Amino acid sequence: MVTMPKVIEIRTPGRGFTNITSQVQAELSGSGLCHLFLQHTSASLILTENASPEVRTDLETLIGRAAPDGDPAYLHDDEGPDDMAAHFRTLLAGHELSLPMSDGRLMLGTWQGVFLWEHRAHPHRRRIVITQLPERQ
Amino acid sequence: MVTMPKVIEIRTPGRGFTNITSQVQAELSGSGLCHLFLQHTSASLILTENASPEVRTDLETLIGRAAPDGDPAYLHDDEGPDDMAAHFRTLLAGHELSLPMSDGRLMLGTWQGVFLWEHRAHPHRRRIVITQLPERQ
Amino acid sequence: MVTMPKVIEIRTPGRGFTNITSQVQAELSGSGLCHLFLQHTSASLILTENASPEVRTDLETLIGRAAPDGDPAYLHDDEGPDDMAAHFRTLLAGHELSLPMSDGRLMLGTWQGVFLWEHRAHPHRRRIVITQLPERQ
Repeated sequence: MVTMPKVIEIRTPGRGFTNITSQVQAELSGSGLCHLFLQHTSASLILTENASPEVRTDLETLIGRAAPDGDPAYLHDDEGPDDMAAHFRTLLAGHELSLPMSDGRLMLGTWQGVFLWEHRAHPHRRRIVITQLPERQ
Repeated sequence: MVTMPKVIEIRTPGRGFTNITSQVQAELSGSGLCHLFLQHTSASLILTENASPEVRTDLETLIGRAAPDGDPAYLHDDEGPDDMAAHFRTLLAGHELSLPMSDGRLMLGTWQGVFLWEHRAHPHRRRIVITQLPERQ
Repeated sequence: MVTMPKVIEIRTPGRGFTNITSQVQAELSGSGLCHLFLQHTSASLILTENASPEVRTDLETLIGRAAPDGDPAYLHDDEGPDDMAAHFRTLLAGHELSLPMSDGRLMLGTWQGVFLWEHRAHPHRRRIVITQLPERQ
């Protein structure tokens, strides 16, 4: 039998964070590991503090210093000043997460939320492959 | 049957590195993959050079430039000047590791050690969820 | 039975990117997750845009700012000015990837390629452990 990982699609409003913890949780059952894989090189999947929106504003500030839009050194700017910045942001912040689960519940810490971080200026549709892996018995 | 991933707790002395390779190794058996998940957003799990402590000092120097304590731009400073810096350090350095194992032994490279990197200034207790995944037969 | 993960070895020409997507793909069968683990602390495994080589040039530029060669602050320079830089590059860009696969095919996005990123100035041989994990039935 060929099993197929689930794929979910998230619409983003342009650069910024979307909390997808509940949407991911709804897809899960059993125990082991849940792997989330973003099929894109200009957005990220991250865990970060879920309480204060100011944390996310500050993450934007800091990553914007490391990967500035429209840097004069960029050779690659086919799709605008945020194009190359988005690729480096993805490299720094990552594009995948593995989350332990017990009896269908994500074993997150109290302050951990799962976020899709859009790095491009404009809205996009982003695809996430969800793979559930059994723990060793 | 509901299996439960193991959880271990590590006490950190404040900002800095704790080599937890032996402690993780002691929990393992069998072959496949060992996944380590830190349930916090202000500390990291990393692999780095295990021989020279100077490497770790230099990692501190470099990440401190990318995520400075008490930056005037921060909106979030509820818990002091190291609070927001710790969140961005975690984003850059990561909070999880997947390690291949063969017959209960971690398949690390010669120079690779597993470290818990405390990003907060003060001591903390940090929880790590350990999930062991079987390789495909 | 003790199963053994596969290990492949890649020769790098010194600092720069080697597209290893086809080489990895050739090792796979079945569905679930493919885990790639680099047994080194001075090179990376990354996913990035596979079409424009200019993206990779710009990734070099940006990571070189975060982890400069021969920084006067470094305590660790046993193997030259690129030694410590390589360790921090590895921390930022990562050393492992988990890739979903369906019926033996990697489920990558259209623009995603798997690259080995050599951070040291000189050629090296780099070992990658490949572990295949079954999806839950």
